[in-house]
Amino acid sequence: MTTSGRLSGKEVALHNSRDSCWIIVHGHVYDVTEFLDDHPGGSRIILKYAGKDATQEYDPIHPPDAITTNLPKEKHLGPVDPETVEKVEVKITDQEKERQLRVAARPSLDEILNLHDFEAIARLVMAEKAWAYYSSAADDEITNRENHFAYHRIWFRPRILRNVAKVDWSTTILGNPSSMPVYITATALGKLGHPEGELNLTRAAAKHGVIQMIPTLASCSFDEIVDAAQPGQVQFLQLYVNNDRNITKRIVQHAEQRGIKGLFITVDAPQLGRREKDMRMKFEADDPSEVSKSGSEGVDRSQGAARAISSFIDPSLEWADISWFKAITKMPLILKGVQTWEDALMAYDAGLAGIVLSNHGGRQLDFARSGIEILVEVVSKLGEKRGVKFPNEKFQLFVDGGVRRATDVLKAVALGATAVGIGRPFLYAFSAYGQEGVEKGLQILHGEFEMNLRLLGAPTIKDVVPEMVDASNVSSHASNVPGDKLYENNYVGMESVRLRGAKL
Amino acid sequence: MTTSGRLSGKEVALHNSRDSCWIIVHGHVYDVTEFLDDHPGGSRIILKYAGKDATQEYDPIHPPDAITTNLPKEKHLGPVDPETVEKVEVKITDQEKERQLRVAARPSLDEILNLHDFEAIARLVMAEKAWAYYSSAADDEITNRENHFAYHRIWFRPRILRNVAKVDWSTTILGNPSSMPVYITATALGKLGHPEGELNLTRAAAKHGVIQMIPTLASCSFDEIVDAAQPGQVQFLQLYVNNDRNITKRIVQHAEQRGIKGLFITVDAPQLGRREKDMRMKFEADDPSEVSKSGSEGVDRSQGAARAISSFIDPSLEWADISWFKAITKMPLILKGVQTWEDALMAYDAGLAGIVLSNHGGRQLDFARSGIEILVEVVSKLGEKRGVKFPNEKFQLFVDGGVRRATDVLKAVALGATAVGIGRPFLYAFSAYGQEGVEKGLQILHGEFEMNLRLLGAPTIKDVVPEMVDASNVSSHASNVPGDKLYENNYVGMESVRLRGAKL
Amino acid sequence: MTTSGRLSGKEVALHNSRDSCWIIVHGHVYDVTEFLDDHPGGSRIILKYAGKDATQEYDPIHPPDAITTNLPKEKHLGPVDPETVEKVEVKITDQEKERQLRVAARPSLDEILNLHDFEAIARLVMAEKAWAYYSSAADDEITNRENHFAYHRIWFRPRILRNVAKVDWSTTILGNPSSMPVYITATALGKLGHPEGELNLTRAAAKHGVIQMIPTLASCSFDEIVDAAQPGQVQFLQLYVNNDRNITKRIVQHAEQRGIKGLFITVDAPQLGRREKDMRMKFEADDPSEVSKSGSEGVDRSQGAARAISSFIDPSLEWADISWFKAITKMPLILKGVQTWEDALMAYDAGLAGIVLSNHGGRQLDFARSGIEILVEVVSKLGEKRGVKFPNEKFQLFVDGGVRRATDVLKAVALGATAVGIGRPFLYAFSAYGQEGVEKGLQILHGEFEMNLRLLGAPTIKDVVPEMVDASNVSSHASNVPGDKLYENNYVGMESVRLRGAKL
Amino acid sequence: MTTSGRLSGKEVALHNSRDSCWIIVHGHVYDVTEFLDDHPGGSRIILKYAGKDATQEYDPIHPPDAITTNLPKEKHLGPVDPETVEKVEVKITDQEKERQLRVAARPSLDEILNLHDFEAIARLVMAEKAWAYYSSAADDEITNRENHFAYHRIWFRPRILRNVAKVDWSTTILGNPSSMPVYITATALGKLGHPEGELNLTRAAAKHGVIQMIPTLASCSFDEIVDAAQPGQVQFLQLYVNNDRNITKRIVQHAEQRGIKGLFITVDAPQLGRREKDMRMKFEADDPSEVSKSGSEGVDRSQGAARAISSFIDPSLEWADISWFKAITKMPLILKGVQTWEDALMAYDAGLAGIVLSNHGGRQLDFARSGIEILVEVVSKLGEKRGVKFPNEKFQLFVDGGVRRATDVLKAVALGATAVGIGRPFLYAFSAYGQEGVEKGLQILHGEFEMNLRLLGAPTIKDVVPEMVDASNVSSHASNVPGDKLYENNYVGMESVRLRGAKL
Repeated sequence: MTTSGRLSGKEVALHNSRDSCWIIVHGHVYDVTEFLDDHPGGSRIILKYAGKDATQEYDPIHPPDAITTNLPKEKHLGPVDPETVEKVEVKITDQEKERQLRVAARPSLDEILNLHDFEAIARLVMAEKAWAYYSSAADDEITNRENHFAYHRIWFRPRILRNVAKVDWSTTILGNPSSMPVYITATALGKLGHPEGELNLTRAAAKHGVIQMIPTLASCSFDEIVDAAQPGQVQFLQLYVNNDRNITKRIVQHAEQRGIKGLFITVDAPQLGRREKDMRMKFEADDPSEVSKSGSEGVDRSQGAARAISSFIDPSLEWADISWFKAITKMPLILKGVQTWEDALMAYDAGLAGIVLSNHGGRQLDFARSGIEILVEVVSKLGEKRGVKFPNEKFQLFVDGGVRRATDVLKAVALGATAVGIGRPFLYAFSAYGQEGVEKGLQILHGEFEMNLRLLGAPTIKDVVPEMVDASNVSSHASNVPGDKLYENNYVGMESVRLRGAKL
Repeated sequence: MTTSGRLSGKEVALHNSRDSCWIIVHGHVYDVTEFLDDHPGGSRIILKYAGKDATQEYDPIHPPDAITTNLPKEKHLGPVDPETVEKVEVKITDQEKERQLRVAARPSLDEILNLHDFEAIARLVMAEKAWAYYSSAADDEITNRENHFAYHRIWFRPRILRNVAKVDWSTTILGNPSSMPVYITATALGKLGHPEGELNLTRAAAKHGVIQMIPTLASCSFDEIVDAAQPGQVQFLQLYVNNDRNITKRIVQHAEQRGIKGLFITVDAPQLGRREKDMRMKFEADDPSEVSKSGSEGVDRSQGAARAISSFIDPSLEWADISWFKAITKMPLILKGVQTWEDALMAYDAGLAGIVLSNHGGRQLDFARSGIEILVEVVSKLGEKRGVKFPNEKFQLFVDGGVRRATDVLKAVALGATAVGIGRPFLYAFSAYGQEGVEKGLQILHGEFEMNLRLLGAPTIKDVVPEMVDASNVSSHASNVPGDKLYENNYVGMESVRLRGAKL
Repeated sequence: MTTSGRLSGKEVALHNSRDSCWIIVHGHVYDVTEFLDDHPGGSRIILKYAGKDATQEYDPIHPPDAITTNLPKEKHLGPVDPETVEKVEVKITDQEKERQLRVAARPSLDEILNLHDFEAIARLVMAEKAWAYYSSAADDEITNRENHFAYHRIWFRPRILRNVAKVDWSTTILGNPSSMPVYITATALGKLGHPEGELNLTRAAAKHGVIQMIPTLASCSFDEIVDAAQPGQVQFLQLYVNNDRNITKRIVQHAEQRGIKGLFITVDAPQLGRREKDMRMKFEADDPSEVSKSGSEGVDRSQGAARAISSFIDPSLEWADISWFKAITKMPLILKGVQTWEDALMAYDAGLAGIVLSNHGGRQLDFARSGIEILVEVVSKLGEKRGVKFPNEKFQLFVDGGVRRATDVLKAVALGATAVGIGRPFLYAFSAYGQEGVEKGLQILHGEFEMNLRLLGAPTIKDVVPEMVDASNVSSHASNVPGDKLYENNYVGMESVRLRGAKL
Repeated sequence: MTTSGRLSGKEVALHNSRDSCWIIVHGHVYDVTEFLDDHPGGSRIILKYAGKDATQEYDPIHPPDAITTNLPKEKHLGPVDPETVEKVEVKITDQEKERQLRVAARPSLDEILNLHDFEAIARLVMAEKAWAYYSSAADDEITNRENHFAYHRIWFRPRILRNVAKVDWSTTILGNPSSMPVYITATALGKLGHPEGELNLTRAAAKHGVIQMIPTLASCSFDEIVDAAQPGQVQFLQLYVNNDRNITKRIVQHAEQRGIKGLFITVDAPQLGRREKDMRMKFEADDPSEVSKSGSEGVDRSQGAARAISSFIDPSLEWADISWFKAITKMPLILKGVQTWEDALMAYDAGLAGIVLSNHGGRQLDFARSGIEILVEVVSKLGEKRGVKFPNEKFQLFVDGGVRRATDVLKAVALGATAVGIGRPFLYAFSAYGQEGVEKGLQILHGEFEMNLRLLGAPTIKDVVPEMVDASNVSSHASNVPGDKLYENNYVGMESVRLRGAKL
């Protein structure tokens, strides 16, 4: 204890072992000795910072209040005198130096022509483990890619000779204006990609009149994100329901109080998925000599970031809980992660405001179908069973996953969606270029909407109707008969004419 | 002003800045200072030639009268004394030297066996930006390739033991004789590929008895192209409708007067498409140090050639305008770019002479379906709704996009098309070999028609009937389930037997 | 004969030719002179050990009693004095040294994230011919891969908001408890991969509460494997029916006596398949100079391990034999290798306990369909013909082949299977890591079941119902139209934006 | 003229120009001056041998009597004195030396495991132009490969528990015994691959009890091939119908007299196809300096071997000619190259003995469907229209193209074919190994038939019934939606676990 009533760094430094383990986070000292084995990310990573300042490691993968929420009050040992804390020396590896050279070589934003381009740059300029966390998906990542591929089975039937001098792609989402039928969907751990984290999205969304869905697992705190909004800026909240319903109640009612316009309850993640790209990364970062000693009986210390942050999620959440939500908030309630028409019908009958047809960006159940495929089934069956037509103001359908172009969005709109959520592309945009990247991404979408509404012969979003697409192949899940290697070895492909003297 | 009443190059050279910017085109001086920000291609490229002769840069991407049409009379400053103009020094880059070596190494025309071969050579011998403009297409170029792939889903049902000693593949198109059921469709900016531009097509078409469709956006002027025709040679005109209908009226009536036999009004391009390969090229050509300074707020100076030449196109063109066209011309009217049976039916009911089922070579709306797929739908639905049969003299169906072989053409003919438009292959033919290339391309098609009519058991084009094709798969838009990479990594393909001692 | 009444190694060494050929196996001497031409693996391999100790070569590819069973009593010459036998010098090749380096570099079991990973390591650390035997399949290995790919055409329809706090993936198989709907299916020659052979499976199965099916062609003897089981541990027996039914009767009744709980009679292998990867390996191992002399008339000495061990299998086995099996045993009888609903119906009508829908891991008839595809047909047709529903206690359906994930298993369960057999992945697991590998594999499956039952919204195996999958594409056997090489040669793919100055 | 009444080589050597061009073939001198421009292979190749002995070049691509048949009697100048003829010096190129090294390194026939393997070796050991002629096919070679791929869309439904101790795959073809449901189909120019040409096939067919179909365009003369047959050996004749029906009549009646058991009239080749791989080869062989001079007006000297040998074929052959054939011969008449059920029905109604469903190995019309696909249509429609069932003794169906495995043959048999023709694999077999290669190929097929009949549960060919295959996908001609390159560039595939320290 220093004279200032604060703990001294030297004292903290003594508690540097499994027997007594203190760490410093944001200038406060915590005794985590008993918590070591409960840490979802394993004890190893904590022990690395035993007796030291862990803030840098802690920040990008924990919500700011994670430690205070999870640790009993008596383990909060109070503030530390910053002068007395030894700086954690950060070694800059060769790998990191190369990464910084790549950051310096980023092309001008003018050269970014589409949402794909952000990903191409982000992959090169992000820290590897950040990239692994953002890009990874469940099991063999089949659903992850299917989300994009499914759009390729839907083709346009554009109309001609309609006056498209003026085209307008604005719409309303849950009664709120949006400059396009797109919202920024919730994605976790924004600070992995950029120090400003989710605030990049908030600010860019304000500039371009789109709605941001704030994630439960943001790196910035909920209030930081709401505070960053412009007056009147619309925000939604994505909710993981906590084992402790009081915590959930507090979160929901606080959100309503802060003006959140829609509550998106995640229903496709009773347990967060295994994402092997992310898990593989943990091992590569570890000290190989230690790793090799561990055997099949060893502690499983490598579940990746997803597991590290999600142990609080309640797997017992069920339909019966919906009435409780209705009781605690007046915000529109939307289920995020509906994957069958049967559940869509139950949500409709339960009087909810809408559903997001989503498989969590392919990060949960592999071989879950794409949102766009489910949309076709839901619109058809709810029409048949309840006579409801889409898009529908009272029960709105949303889709997310795999979207890269305005044409993707317009396919969903034609098939009955109110709007489409886009996640990873904006993560990659700010990871590569910060807030300006997100703005550029939105600009690109504006340009694509203008062009494509004209080419579709649809002056407004309302004119984008089911007859404008052919989705008859959307449920086709073909896989080719495996190749006949011996035949292929023997077949010599046709060759084009060549230049004289040319080898190629 | 020189004594000859002409401006002196030295005076022009003083106006070399954004504040006062004069340029020389074809020996005349123009004050473009106020036009700089309106230039569809951006001010940057003009400023590069401020105070200088811009003809070389201007020529391949502007119709000859573009500058006189777009600039108010008072900005036409009159002729310049050529003696006094400083020559623009053209640096021959290493890249260009290598290109010229490739030009010298072109194989003999005898070695060109099919239309694909022209493209293989053109890609190697064209200037990169010319190739980028010709080959580029919309967004992810999915439709561009689908145009070709769609033909691969249509298979033949050839008949045997029919006397095919004499086969005749000539036909008539809008009442005009054609040596084959093919016409040369309109494509812009012919001089990018060859100094003679579209005249290569005119002359080759004359030799081989096929019809050329003259593009609005030709590099040669309309009259140059018509003048180059042989007496009696049939030509059509492709029309982009101008914001100023008087200009359009003048163009149409002039065309009729010059003997044009059909007016193809483009209806799939209210705005010209974003073609990213083309746009990417602009950046690569730019000075990288300048590019890097620009940010997301910067002017978008890089829309590629398409945007640079198309700002005049009227996006408000609509069905109601059709009667106006009927009032100003007696030429047969055809809509180019119809993409649904619904619009085909409207065109039929409007009493037009025909339609081109086309998606603009994949350069406009990505995920637009191929013309050949739409053909099947149109023939079926117009038969059902109006009892009309195809091919039909009074309402002719045309298809373009993706055609490389006479077999492709014969598939379209069997399915009801009167003729098929071929564009890029002829561009590549003259880009690689000038007029002789186009002639060789037509010769190749003649040879393929002879062969394939024999093999189909169809002595004439009329004998190519629907029963000769199986198009039942044409609407199948499959995309494989994404690969299981871990499985594939592990699978070791079968290996063929090897030579003794061989590594391979 | 030594004084000890045992033969001396020196004496044995004299019988080292085709004229008189003795070999030593497990310390006993056998006169195989007359057997040379009947040896399914050819005489060559025996002659290599003429007069020597052949135990090391013999062990991994013969059941321990093969030699005593196949050779008449009078050719059993009795024990040899081990002191007098010359050691067979084993040269360690460079290839083998490299393999041992790879064995030493195996990653920790913690790094194994899925069943695919075992195969990735096993391929690197196994002896080449062992790997060839395990991995090879029939003809072009089309069915082998189709077994895995077929699962990719089946997609999930997961349900939400069901209480999945507790999930339970245990089940019963033929009335016996199993910790998961998975059993370890029979695979031959376990000692090729690991010196403990099938015992690795027995012990790991005990630890994790799963059932092992003991193969007829095990490297360990049946009794060794049963002896290694824990008290109460459930085991099944896979049976190849012998030409000599007395042998079969003895095997079956012995198995029943030892407590085997189910008899799986293989019906898809009247003759064991040609597996060319395996056969190719034999040549590569042979002396090339000798090989080259042989011609088309030569003896076919290279049928691979499969043929070497299977000549006893009776190809005349037929439906009429079923009643004989019923007469000699009370064990539940299951047919392994049923491939049509017609045969499934016959098995049902014959009162059997179940069937395995299987194509022998793709090792028998190429272009046989996958078990999972046949399952859909069988459930549908038996429902239609006999009104039976699945899963069904009295007539159980099993599937094997191509399974790598718990999601694969859950698809089969949803479609009506009681359990799924997994073979090769466990072979690879013990080949890479011994018993611990198999345990890790089972742990991984446990983890995947927990996760995926939650994500499916199915608290127990009984809740995994047909509506949870879309199998409508399972019978689609697409093969793409062959590629148009000339077109593909010419098409230049879209390129992403690049770093400044970057080559890539 | 020498004293022996023979011409002297020196005199011949004087006629070495376009003005007077004599050549020597098989010891006789011919004046081909006036024939130069009529030579289907162009004048260039003849002029190369003007005044010289052309036998070596002539032999492999002309039937032996081609020159005497095509040249008027007065141009046959008589025998030359061989002593006086200058030897044509054959330069052995480096390329040829490498080829001979490869010939020496051929693996033993024992190592050939399947028909694919012959092709793998043949490609390496054949002269390039021979390989090009054998392997080439029409246009983009789509049909050529589709012939093989179509079999991959047909899957087996094998039956179990049938007594297959004895299996018998012999059958009868047009009433003649055959050891398997396979015949060696007609292919041209056998001497390109091996000096014994078609005789390799004759002799191997005799040994293995299969039927050879003798081609019109054999390198050996018809009588040579018939003479090489064993007493009682069955042979068929493939017939190209000549412009001069007297020639055809002579051929047919001579064949009948020599005991030919079936006449297969080719109906898919009124003109022989363009095969670009073959044509491309001609240019590569030519002197590049000369080639470059030629322009689009030049003589087309490069139609490949196919055109060089086929100008006599009559494109006016039609149904009405069938009665003429019936009048001139009693041999069973079969049409080879039927491609629709409509023509199959006409052939049936015309009382023919059978048809071959074939597209000429993909060498004629590209996008013609595979024989196996047509088979399904023909069997279905002839059943519907005429109540006929297949296989049928009175009207037999044959299929050829793309067959590599006995499983392919058994699919065709199950679907109603009497037998299947195999062509290229036997060409490759003798090109690589002469007669022994063909024998080995037949041995391999015998082995595959034995195995696969057992695995199908079909003791004889008659037991191979339609229910044993699922051909419901055979008419599916899918082509994937073109890939999204930008997406694919960004996607980083899953990686397997690696060895510690390993790069791979």
